[in-house]
Amino acid sequence: MKMKRSGRLVDMTHYLLSHPHEVVSLSFFSERYESAKSSISEDLVIVKQNFESQGVGWLKTIAGASGGVIYVPFVQKAQAAAFLKDLEEQLASGNRLLPGGYLYMTDILGQPAFIRSIGQLIASIYAGDSIDTIITVETKGIPLAYAVASQLNTPVVIARKSSKVTEGSTVSINYVSGSTKRIQSMVLPRRSLTPGARVLIIDDFMKAGGTIRGMKNLIQEFDAVVAGAAVLVETKEEDKLVDDYVSLLKLSISEGEQLSIENGSYFNYYKEVNWHENDLY
Amino acid sequence: MKMKRSGRLVDMTHYLLSHPHEVVSLSFFSERYESAKSSISEDLVIVKQNFESQGVGWLKTIAGASGGVIYVPFVQKAQAAAFLKDLEEQLASGNRLLPGGYLYMTDILGQPAFIRSIGQLIASIYAGDSIDTIITVETKGIPLAYAVASQLNTPVVIARKSSKVTEGSTVSINYVSGSTKRIQSMVLPRRSLTPGARVLIIDDFMKAGGTIRGMKNLIQEFDAVVAGAAVLVETKEEDKLVDDYVSLLKLSISEGEQLSIENGSYFNYYKEVNWHENDLY
Repeated sequence: MKMKRSGRLVDMTHYLLSHPHEVVSLSFFSERYESAKSSISEDLVIVKQNFESQGVGWLKTIAGASGGVIYVPFVQKAQAAAFLKDLEEQLASGNRLLPGGYLYMTDILGQPAFIRSIGQLIASIYAGDSIDTIITVETKGIPLAYAVASQLNTPVVIARKSSKVTEGSTVSINYVSGSTKRIQSMVLPRRSLTPGARVLIIDDFMKAGGTIRGMKNLIQEFDAVVAGAAVLVETKEEDKLVDDYVSLLKLSISEGEQLSIENGSYFNYYKEVNWHENDLY
Repeated sequence: MKMKRSGRLVDMTHYLLSHPHEVVSLSFFSERYESAKSSISEDLVIVKQNFESQGVGWLKTIAGASGGVIYVPFVQKAQAAAFLKDLEEQLASGNRLLPGGYLYMTDILGQPAFIRSIGQLIASIYAGDSIDTIITVETKGIPLAYAVASQLNTPVVIARKSSKVTEGSTVSINYVSGSTKRIQSMVLPRRSLTPGARVLIIDDFMKAGGTIRGMKNLIQEFDAVVAGAAVLVETKEEDKLVDDYVSLLKLSISEGEQLSIENGSYFNYYKEVNWHENDLY
């Protein structure tokens, strides 16, 4: 459909936001709007400047005959810090401490806008990495896993705690929960991971890390590669069974059952991007 | 930040897309861009025309001193039909039939872009309704529930099959699965629903409808109101324990184990919107 610049800018913004981490060629836009590539290039400069100044993400330009752009969602450091501060305040307020050292987060995990923001923060860490698939284990990590996946443009696989008739043949492992020391199992449909795939582990809460370690073992069972692991909240006290993971928040509970929440390892993994260099990939 | 029209259009588009079903005042945009309300009004006309012609949704204008706009995501009928046709073809291909009359959909449910589109289709049915909360039961309906919720701007609550330590005090019901006739239970945190809330039920697959009926009972247990129920796939054969639900697709399996998939009740519930009238709410 023939469109003026103003209409093109609205449509391009919508299109790019719904197709992150995907190469979109100049020709595609040129045909879509029946406009010259030179005009499209000018449009994209406007979109790029706005996305970068407003902290929506990065518009990487690909030069050459098959040239185009890739929209890379990316949260700036100051925004990430402000979001985490806000989240810490929400979690510290109210009566959230539950028996066993757990934190009531169900209400916050039920807010799609919050989940989307958390997904954007985690996706920023892996924006320059090559992630093929996201894995989580049922139940509460699922929304987070999809939020990250929709930013990174990857599929999600969900490990189940027992084999389901609706998933065909499966691969199963046993693992020991780090906190309760109980043996549990984790099951993934046989068709869900391909050998060599780079897999990112996502979960909502980590105590000792037994579940994360279980997912690592499951990934290896498929001859796939653990590309990273990220959780929303980890506890401070426990000895961990895994190292090298991203946590957004770290929770500790004093002897008087006082809750304290601080930043996790997030900013240790955060890489600043120079918006004016095109070498993210 | 002072912005020219071109930058404003990019930013407004992004802002509105991330804030569906929310009143955004002219003053808000006017301050955000340090621009006159008259300019903002002109911008919004451009955004509105584009959203409506491209099928992104509807931009409802609110007149008066507290005037502004609401972005209502809405899929046009032709787009919805094309999407369902595509989904039917994907589900009919490959070897998806599982023992017990189930369909292997795990790969499709693992694609965030597909899930988002399904969410947009379901949200279109309820675009003019007033939905306070979305409910689903673990596990496979969860991504769909969030996809609908992020379009309708509502929270999600997830019923669990057993009580979890991480959710505080709970309300539990027993229900009979319509297909297997087994008694099962379903649990929701006590803080998750408020009396009178209008709750939309979302699930991935429905055979006899026992699970949907269970969620209806659970909603009533909280003195909340069942505002509707929508599933991705229902089976054709079984007698249903519920009526009045939206299904996107209907699956039947012939005696020779041949799978056939057709449209469900979706278009019976679909209401055409006259884009030039502002009376959606």
